[in-house]
Amino acid sequence: MTHDYADRTKNGLHDLAGKLGLAITGDHLANIWEECHLPGRDAVAQVLDQLLSVLFPGVFGNQVVRESELGDFLLESLASIRQSLSRQIAMALDFRASQASPLLSGDPRCGANASQGSEIASRLLEALPGIRQVLGEDLLAAYEGDPSAGSVVEVLMSYPFVHAISTHRIAHELYRAGIPLLPRMMSEVAHSRTGSDIHPGATIGPGFFIDHGTGVVIGETAVIGRGVKLYQGVTLGALSFPKDKDGNPIKGIKRHPNIEDNVTIYAGATVLGGKTTIGKGSVIGGNCWITSSVPPETVVMSEQAERKRK
Amino acid sequence: MTHDYADRTKNGLHDLAGKLGLAITGDHLANIWEECHLPGRDAVAQVLDQLLSVLFPGVFGNQVVRESELGDFLLESLASIRQSLSRQIAMALDFRASQASPLLSGDPRCGANASQGSEIASRLLEALPGIRQVLGEDLLAAYEGDPSAGSVVEVLMSYPFVHAISTHRIAHELYRAGIPLLPRMMSEVAHSRTGSDIHPGATIGPGFFIDHGTGVVIGETAVIGRGVKLYQGVTLGALSFPKDKDGNPIKGIKRHPNIEDNVTIYAGATVLGGKTTIGKGSVIGGNCWITSSVPPETVVMSEQAERKRK
Amino acid sequence: MTHDYADRTKNGLHDLAGKLGLAITGDHLANIWEECHLPGRDAVAQVLDQLLSVLFPGVFGNQVVRESELGDFLLESLASIRQSLSRQIAMALDFRASQASPLLSGDPRCGANASQGSEIASRLLEALPGIRQVLGEDLLAAYEGDPSAGSVVEVLMSYPFVHAISTHRIAHELYRAGIPLLPRMMSEVAHSRTGSDIHPGATIGPGFFIDHGTGVVIGETAVIGRGVKLYQGVTLGALSFPKDKDGNPIKGIKRHPNIEDNVTIYAGATVLGGKTTIGKGSVIGGNCWITSSVPPETVVMSEQAERKRK
Repeated sequence: MTHDYADRTKNGLHDLAGKLGLAITGDHLANIWEECHLPGRDAVAQVLDQLLSVLFPGVFGNQVVRESELGDFLLESLASIRQSLSRQIAMALDFRASQASPLLSGDPRCGANASQGSEIASRLLEALPGIRQVLGEDLLAAYEGDPSAGSVVEVLMSYPFVHAISTHRIAHELYRAGIPLLPRMMSEVAHSRTGSDIHPGATIGPGFFIDHGTGVVIGETAVIGRGVKLYQGVTLGALSFPKDKDGNPIKGIKRHPNIEDNVTIYAGATVLGGKTTIGKGSVIGGNCWITSSVPPETVVMSEQAERKRK
Repeated sequence: MTHDYADRTKNGLHDLAGKLGLAITGDHLANIWEECHLPGRDAVAQVLDQLLSVLFPGVFGNQVVRESELGDFLLESLASIRQSLSRQIAMALDFRASQASPLLSGDPRCGANASQGSEIASRLLEALPGIRQVLGEDLLAAYEGDPSAGSVVEVLMSYPFVHAISTHRIAHELYRAGIPLLPRMMSEVAHSRTGSDIHPGATIGPGFFIDHGTGVVIGETAVIGRGVKLYQGVTLGALSFPKDKDGNPIKGIKRHPNIEDNVTIYAGATVLGGKTTIGKGSVIGGNCWITSSVPPETVVMSEQAERKRK
Repeated sequence: MTHDYADRTKNGLHDLAGKLGLAITGDHLANIWEECHLPGRDAVAQVLDQLLSVLFPGVFGNQVVRESELGDFLLESLASIRQSLSRQIAMALDFRASQASPLLSGDPRCGANASQGSEIASRLLEALPGIRQVLGEDLLAAYEGDPSAGSVVEVLMSYPFVHAISTHRIAHELYRAGIPLLPRMMSEVAHSRTGSDIHPGATIGPGFFIDHGTGVVIGETAVIGRGVKLYQGVTLGALSFPKDKDGNPIKGIKRHPNIEDNVTIYAGATVLGGKTTIGKGSVIGGNCWITSSVPPETVVMSEQAERKRK
């Protein structure tokens, strides 16, 4: 009786597994290539965490790094990053090469892009000291821009912004190198942890700071100058986007705004459109809705809401 | 001396542990049932992750799944899910049965709902192929609705929306089956990871897409048609809610809006009220505040904020 | 040939590791002290999780706790917390003592603050029963304030608010004791998981509730009365802040608003300024922008957005 029941349920699962398997191999909305798997989300997060830990040892994660061991720590970490990252980049390139269309995935020819993967990974590593220097300017801007910050180290150890901007400056290098998938997966790891959604395509000058960070969205073609400060909930987004004759969105057009040097944008403001420029030194008040350019040195403010007795 | 000190501090902790223990067993704001524990947050997250991985193998988590092993992977995963989920459902039902009131928990009679738990778990598994098909329409809507998406696979591998809507379509099945606690715990796992807070009670048509997703709130009794697109920070919420004669909120009333087919709602807009309907094809601009119905094919826009020189 | 290649790439990494190492030891934007490491983010998260689990056993994490084992569980957890927390507090104090300026870190003299660390850790533990009692009032406020909550236990098991406010009430004790770094690191752990960014300095009365929670920001010097309810996306922030003659922000000024008893603030509203008080019993509507005081028993509402046919 028990045996019959076990068999029956097992059969039930066999049928179900078969049905699901057919659907999955039919539409290939999955990551089950026989040889060339794309890296899953956790694998990408792991390499990203290693990259963050060579930029700022001892800050992220649980590993204790002493100054006397720093050289060894960096050497080992860099070797491990290069190995993983080379493979992940190569797989992403193999995958793109196999795609018949954005909607249809083929079977990636594994290894075709191995040397390119390793070259681009090495180039990213070579860029790390320069990235770290720019991040130093960002950290200073954060300390100076937030009265509640007690020291630069407090910013480094606790602000989600550090995670968000470090990830962005890394992912942006991969984006510029033309790598598919991977930079966006990295930025989504940071988005999940910090609430700030910065597309890896966005161009962001040094001395940048986002305070609090939750709900911030910065679009792919946004261009941000030096010394810009954003607060939580700010959107630098698209106003609308043209579609081709088949009704599909046209990709690759400048859709997001330009923010010039030393602009401040307060909480919940929304700035939209690829032709919208916020001029140098301007201040955008909280909850403002902006869809056309603002001249330099301008203050934009929402009206105060109406009040009445209960 | 050291010994005295150790004893003294140990005694200090004994007293403190005793005081905390008394408080905990007194108000039962804890999950310490002798036999019938509710699943903790991590246990629920684990089953949810398994469910996501049979829908889209290789996408979430670190496990590599090859097409040739797909059948075995699915069969083993489904068996493991059924076992865990049956137990979690049964415990949630046992717990509810033991509650003298929403404020007072009794001691669950363990095992009373074992067969119902296993039946409902099996029914959820049977629903997975259908859920996956609807999710395919959501993925396509995301690709078509976002110019920065390079391919459907990029959406699948990186967009937080995929996690949010997949979790919702699973949790909604459990909600409809009348399971307490569990669906809400699942939706909060997704909320924590994606920033989108979709109540498991919400009814959502196919071809749905939330871009960016941080700060989106969709209430329990919201009803959303086909092909609806939301941006970050959109609230579909309650306007206010009636209380009974004792001042307690009356539960189970329609409190959240209806959003008809092909509506788009931009970032930070707030739509409130159970009698509020946004008509077919309408567009709600960013940061708008809506508390009454909007006819079909209507555009609603905030005013631009006032500008002045600094 | 292969050997040459390996050597060449190894050399490449040696140079790079050297360059990064020099930069790191030069600016000390890292946590690599020879003896006195600051706790990294994961270490702080671990102690915080233990603290949450003695407040509400069995709710967070995967560990099963039975009522019959509760005493042992609490005793062991408290001993482990005291040990870790004492060390973390001491390290944070050692670190601050070594700082020549907020921008310049010295080399902490390890152990100088060991006894203070252990004293403050013990004092925090002694405060836990009181903290738990206030949290009980918060849980009840959440149940009463949300019609979709089926029971107090549902709130406890699934609402992100529970994590956010429990963390805050712990971190606030450490903040009041003058501990640097640690309270802010704890609050950022909760921020990352819940989307609610509550500065450990904020003073918050009992019976508090934040529904949904994503995007909420509560500043360091905010003072919140009893029975206050906030929704997602609410900011209690600074309007602007004075700078000293060198252009640095002046720290330690009252910059954030006062919210009196029984105020409700709906989604996306922004209340700014240290001299802004929202009077007792007032209601602030969604998306409102408030930079001056509101009298008691007042309703503040945004205007409905303009509508037109497409």
